[in-house]
Amino acid sequence: MNRELALHTDKYQINMMYAHWVNGTYKRRAVFEGYFRKLPFGNGFAVFAGLERIVGYIASLRFTEEDIRYLSEQEENYAPAFLEELRQFHFHGTIHSMKEGALVFPEEPLIRVEGTIMEAQLVETAILNFMNFQTLIASKAARIKQVAGDDILMEFGTRRAQEADAAIWGTRAAYIAGFDATSNLLAGRIFGIPAKGTHAHSWVQSFGSEQEAFDTYAKVLPDGVTLLVDTFDTLRSGVPNAIATAKKLEAGGKRMNAIRLDSGDLAYLSIQARKMLDEAGLEYVKIVASNDLDENTISNLKLQGAAIDSWGVGTQLITASDQPSLGGVYKLVEIESKDREMVPTIKISSNPEKVSTPGKKEVYRIIGTNGKAMSDYISYPDEDRPRSGRPLKLFNPLHPYLQKNVERYEAMPMLEPIFVNGFQVYTLPGLEEIRRYHREQLSLFWPEYLRKLNPEVYRVSLSETVWNRKQELIKAHMLADRE
Amino acid sequence: MNRELALHTDKYQINMMYAHWVNGTYKRRAVFEGYFRKLPFGNGFAVFAGLERIVGYIASLRFTEEDIRYLSEQEENYAPAFLEELRQFHFHGTIHSMKEGALVFPEEPLIRVEGTIMEAQLVETAILNFMNFQTLIASKAARIKQVAGDDILMEFGTRRAQEADAAIWGTRAAYIAGFDATSNLLAGRIFGIPAKGTHAHSWVQSFGSEQEAFDTYAKVLPDGVTLLVDTFDTLRSGVPNAIATAKKLEAGGKRMNAIRLDSGDLAYLSIQARKMLDEAGLEYVKIVASNDLDENTISNLKLQGAAIDSWGVGTQLITASDQPSLGGVYKLVEIESKDREMVPTIKISSNPEKVSTPGKKEVYRIIGTNGKAMSDYISYPDEDRPRSGRPLKLFNPLHPYLQKNVERYEAMPMLEPIFVNGFQVYTLPGLEEIRRYHREQLSLFWPEYLRKLNPEVYRVSLSETVWNRKQELIKAHMLADRE
Repeated sequence: MNRELALHTDKYQINMMYAHWVNGTYKRRAVFEGYFRKLPFGNGFAVFAGLERIVGYIASLRFTEEDIRYLSEQEENYAPAFLEELRQFHFHGTIHSMKEGALVFPEEPLIRVEGTIMEAQLVETAILNFMNFQTLIASKAARIKQVAGDDILMEFGTRRAQEADAAIWGTRAAYIAGFDATSNLLAGRIFGIPAKGTHAHSWVQSFGSEQEAFDTYAKVLPDGVTLLVDTFDTLRSGVPNAIATAKKLEAGGKRMNAIRLDSGDLAYLSIQARKMLDEAGLEYVKIVASNDLDENTISNLKLQGAAIDSWGVGTQLITASDQPSLGGVYKLVEIESKDREMVPTIKISSNPEKVSTPGKKEVYRIIGTNGKAMSDYISYPDEDRPRSGRPLKLFNPLHPYLQKNVERYEAMPMLEPIFVNGFQVYTLPGLEEIRRYHREQLSLFWPEYLRKLNPEVYRVSLSETVWNRKQELIKAHMLADRE
Repeated sequence: MNRELALHTDKYQINMMYAHWVNGTYKRRAVFEGYFRKLPFGNGFAVFAGLERIVGYIASLRFTEEDIRYLSEQEENYAPAFLEELRQFHFHGTIHSMKEGALVFPEEPLIRVEGTIMEAQLVETAILNFMNFQTLIASKAARIKQVAGDDILMEFGTRRAQEADAAIWGTRAAYIAGFDATSNLLAGRIFGIPAKGTHAHSWVQSFGSEQEAFDTYAKVLPDGVTLLVDTFDTLRSGVPNAIATAKKLEAGGKRMNAIRLDSGDLAYLSIQARKMLDEAGLEYVKIVASNDLDENTISNLKLQGAAIDSWGVGTQLITASDQPSLGGVYKLVEIESKDREMVPTIKISSNPEKVSTPGKKEVYRIIGTNGKAMSDYISYPDEDRPRSGRPLKLFNPLHPYLQKNVERYEAMPMLEPIFVNGFQVYTLPGLEEIRRYHREQLSLFWPEYLRKLNPEVYRVSLSETVWNRKQELIKAHMLADRE
């Protein structure tokens, strides 16, 4: 899974590493933070995912001889001693991160990388690539899970995914956020996600008749067989033939699992099929639906009384088709100065929302006495740690009238140490544990924050120290500008 | 690149393989065709890509011991002899395909797989996954290339791509359709695509001043350096500082390559920056722009007179964000009967456009005496091959009034043999050759078919035999239905 990915980075990273190396600044300590500015899909939260992939990448990060040879041919400027530096490269930095399955919000650090400027720069591209994609898909899946409730959700999107990695890591992200199964066997093998499958239209087409095709399939795979009933005509051919097959299975003491609808009006067809199944005494046979489903079609189908028990969701989920990227960024927030002091840095922009927040930061989730999350709280490590009894001002500078003082609360630290000085200190939890953590996280939030349409905005508060430092740095740059 | 991908398939494929195996039908010959029904982005054509990936996959397709163990645990039903069959599995079938870079159209076979039903079924998922993604990105890139003309186009999307494979294969697809370079070094190393890069905001932030950052960078990488000028204030700080650096470079006999704009109003900023550069005698310094660009923003910026020479295109391209999937399908068109005859098959659907076209088919591109493509023409292998002098009726049943008879033409066969009975007979061309072929292909078409908005529809014609067979099969199923 973790192929040689050292060169899975932007060329400018290596150029900057080289420039720092030549300049003698490459061992300066730096702190970068990865975060996004805007929630996807108009959702009220995102679901953090991608950490396992990042850990695998960091732990096995080496330049191969082939990489070194390529770089030496690429850029004549690179000095041999620099290439030797790369040949010896290991990641020796420190990484903190949100746990997979966590609910996360804009403008708060999801991952924090501390190390030499050289190593911290190298890993930017891959970390963003992995974090952006899995967080995007987990967030999309959470929306679908919300409307599906306790129905079974299956990820069926491999053929439309954006290449193999997307299929495999995407289905993992969906599973984190509450999907129950995948069609992709490689994801099943690697991650232990339950793999499910029915049959294709080609199975039916490869037989003289649909009935023969169904009977044969049910005979071979009698345990929990699901039959696809729309190859020719769902209600006049598919469902009656499936019923006949189910009756034959019953005669042998077996039970058909389900029929699958993959085209046409799923509301109408499922209601009719349900009636036909029930009238045949097959109340136990479930109905699976697929065909370009997403949270909106599922929610509408449910409103129309569709008799669907289980949903196969493909393209719309695995590509996050209504917004196929999360704009996560990775910004330098602190850098060691010539005098070996850590100095907060800022990026100014003509777009105000793109101005970064300086300094290495912590994230706390502030839980009220009712057990519900009130706000996230961002402060510097050298500030007093928020703890119950210590009054806290929850305050977002963009919405100052919303400020709130709290005294009784729990402050849940959100960033976990993952690597410390190059050593992995975090034990990757299993997927079931991640799913459990995700459900716990969901239970911390009032439904108003979670609803898929026009959710209430959950606030991320800054400590006054953080806010003041940001203002000072902006002012300093404006002054420098006028000089 | 071609990791063990045998299980990168849907579970139902293995279930169908098993069911055919138990049923004794697994060695029946089958023909499947991969095609799409609708062009992406409202474009007039798609650019076929993904073949190299498919060839690598097919050639190395084996089940590992780990795969076999997983399958045996997955499904108790699978007989040990079936698993042994998988252990011995090699692909022995025959594959024909469009060449990468070809312009392709809806409802024509892009790839045709002939083999035992078992092997042809197994490869469906991965073939679609690879073909759908690369064809999608190449088609998106072709739109961008069209508006960019001879400007330099760079693929910058890795951090927002849908995982690593998408970044790497996606940039290859973009290069096929006319992009000039990528930021991704792994794609550079693997495919030989020119890799380019500037520096990030963090480079500037890591210095005491922007001027110092620029000077240092230019000193280290004096050949063709590009400076990012928007970290603090583009026109008041970035551009003046870059000009000062360029002057210092000139003093040493070097020339700065470009400045890069990555935020703000790119039209206004580029025009102002151009003036400032020109007034400083730096007419040779180019302007690179990036920031969520696509074919529409580029075309509008050009209309507004933006002074941009080179475009870095990221998210919108690498995710094909306005339509992040191509709906390619893979349908059974012929199957061997009990009497060992090849029988055409059809899939009926309540959505008329989803009815498949039966039988194994050839595709010809019909070129008029003026050297321009008139129509694609689909016929059966046992029909007379179209050739100049043999009158041809170009006819699309959905638009019968558009039929046209031609006598003088060239009929260019579009499907190349890739594998024959498991042996690779096709030599994969290099990327430069593929790019050349793509440009040749483009030159065959009138601009009306190529324009990005409301293009004229290029017709795919069916031979009368193909059309008649389709009607017969539909009728046969309707009759069977009434019985």
